[in-house]
Amino acid sequence: MPAKLAPDRHRGLIVASGALTPPERAAEMLTRVFAQLAPQSRAVVIAAGDGDDHDGDIEMLLREAGANDVRRTLLRTRADSDQRALLDAIDHAELVLLQTDQPLRLSTLVGGTPLARALRRRNAEGMAVAGCGAAAALLCEHMLAHGEAGATPRHGGVQFAPGLGLTNRVVIDQGGHASDRLGRLLSALALNPFALGLGIDAATAAIIGPDNVLEVVGAGGVTVLDPSEMAESNVADLAPGTPIRITNLRLHALTGGARYDLDFRRAL
Amino acid sequence: MPAKLAPDRHRGLIVASGALTPPERAAEMLTRVFAQLAPQSRAVVIAAGDGDDHDGDIEMLLREAGANDVRRTLLRTRADSDQRALLDAIDHAELVLLQTDQPLRLSTLVGGTPLARALRRRNAEGMAVAGCGAAAALLCEHMLAHGEAGATPRHGGVQFAPGLGLTNRVVIDQGGHASDRLGRLLSALALNPFALGLGIDAATAAIIGPDNVLEVVGAGGVTVLDPSEMAESNVADLAPGTPIRITNLRLHALTGGARYDLDFRRAL
Repeated sequence: MPAKLAPDRHRGLIVASGALTPPERAAEMLTRVFAQLAPQSRAVVIAAGDGDDHDGDIEMLLREAGANDVRRTLLRTRADSDQRALLDAIDHAELVLLQTDQPLRLSTLVGGTPLARALRRRNAEGMAVAGCGAAAALLCEHMLAHGEAGATPRHGGVQFAPGLGLTNRVVIDQGGHASDRLGRLLSALALNPFALGLGIDAATAAIIGPDNVLEVVGAGGVTVLDPSEMAESNVADLAPGTPIRITNLRLHALTGGARYDLDFRRAL
Repeated sequence: MPAKLAPDRHRGLIVASGALTPPERAAEMLTRVFAQLAPQSRAVVIAAGDGDDHDGDIEMLLREAGANDVRRTLLRTRADSDQRALLDAIDHAELVLLQTDQPLRLSTLVGGTPLARALRRRNAEGMAVAGCGAAAALLCEHMLAHGEAGATPRHGGVQFAPGLGLTNRVVIDQGGHASDRLGRLLSALALNPFALGLGIDAATAAIIGPDNVLEVVGAGGVTVLDPSEMAESNVADLAPGTPIRITNLRLHALTGGARYDLDFRRAL
């Protein structure tokens, strides 16, 4: 079991959210996130990818949820991650919300740029960072970039890439078909048994506080897979595509209101 | 942890198999099943439902796998479960293989008939009984009859019905979309925390021996979910459709060659 570290009381919330759908459920969930932020909240949305039919929607959702000021930027090139106006807005925001059609799209536009540094610095100073849907994966140090569907973990069934690195305690399933996430999470934990696996339903979020306690909000569920007592994994010996044997994981199905301590790895 | 019961050395194998596809992988898996039966094996296939385009296939698969004599019966009415010739064939078979398009189709044709009694009696005497795909669920006392897709368990997300009752130690996901089974199994265990949950890939089987040790054969994986240390389940308090909170389950992803003791609930 990992040691309990001194809590970093200044760190802002890390919000790993499923897809923002259906809108009314997503608005309820976001309202609960905003309830934990300062009043008069300013939100910055950073988006990537061609799923851009929702630009009006996310701004409306955030205003309904409590944001007073919402600014949205669609990143198309890495140079877009160096815009002075965007970095200034982040300096004064209480929440940055990340959106993308797939994790690598956003991580390759942001990784190593002034924007990535600003997000890490501002989160350490107290600003909340939310990743929604596929962007939830970016919050992690080791980002689940791609994964196959299916309940059985397979060698080569997931690909990792560097994420924003706001936390290295969890690996987050990148959304998409929530129902297909078990095999992906198991494959990821076979490769990264240090981390805890989180799979998150749509209109549902895991809010990680500065004390590393996770709280579930929203209409759906969060799957927590804990490999800290993992007894066996044969991933090192396998040919690509073959199923991975991995035993003795702990599983929790959490719902709205549930709390889980990421340091001590137990439901509260 | 359940007490170790005196092993019933005479009981025949109980084979819970995923769908028999692709055929070459299924034939390999069935060959491994037949390797554990007496030579000169006679097999009886009992099928129900309209998925009847495979009748030639299953007989060929079984012959390739080692059966010397294969007889197939399609049940259309409950009266078909009282055919003298069928009951005689079962009296002299080493293996009965069950097939259906959905668990309730076969269980409602067989339940309470002389055929069901013959299958239980002959399994107790040493005959192997295999349920393939949706028919795997029938092997259990408490059969997972219907289940919703998704990773998150929900109240009302599964329906139980009586099965053949060859074992009450496990609940078996009824096949279909293997990747969607996590929520179904969790819902089932929330209702039946006595049992162990098994989810089985296509072309893969869990063979339960008379010593209640399960062995995995085949190309895919078997998910084992053990609720014996379950700490919390709120299923009794929920409205239909809402997600179930259920914590502290043990999960194992097993692959070909893995063995698991159903009495002591541990991987061997």
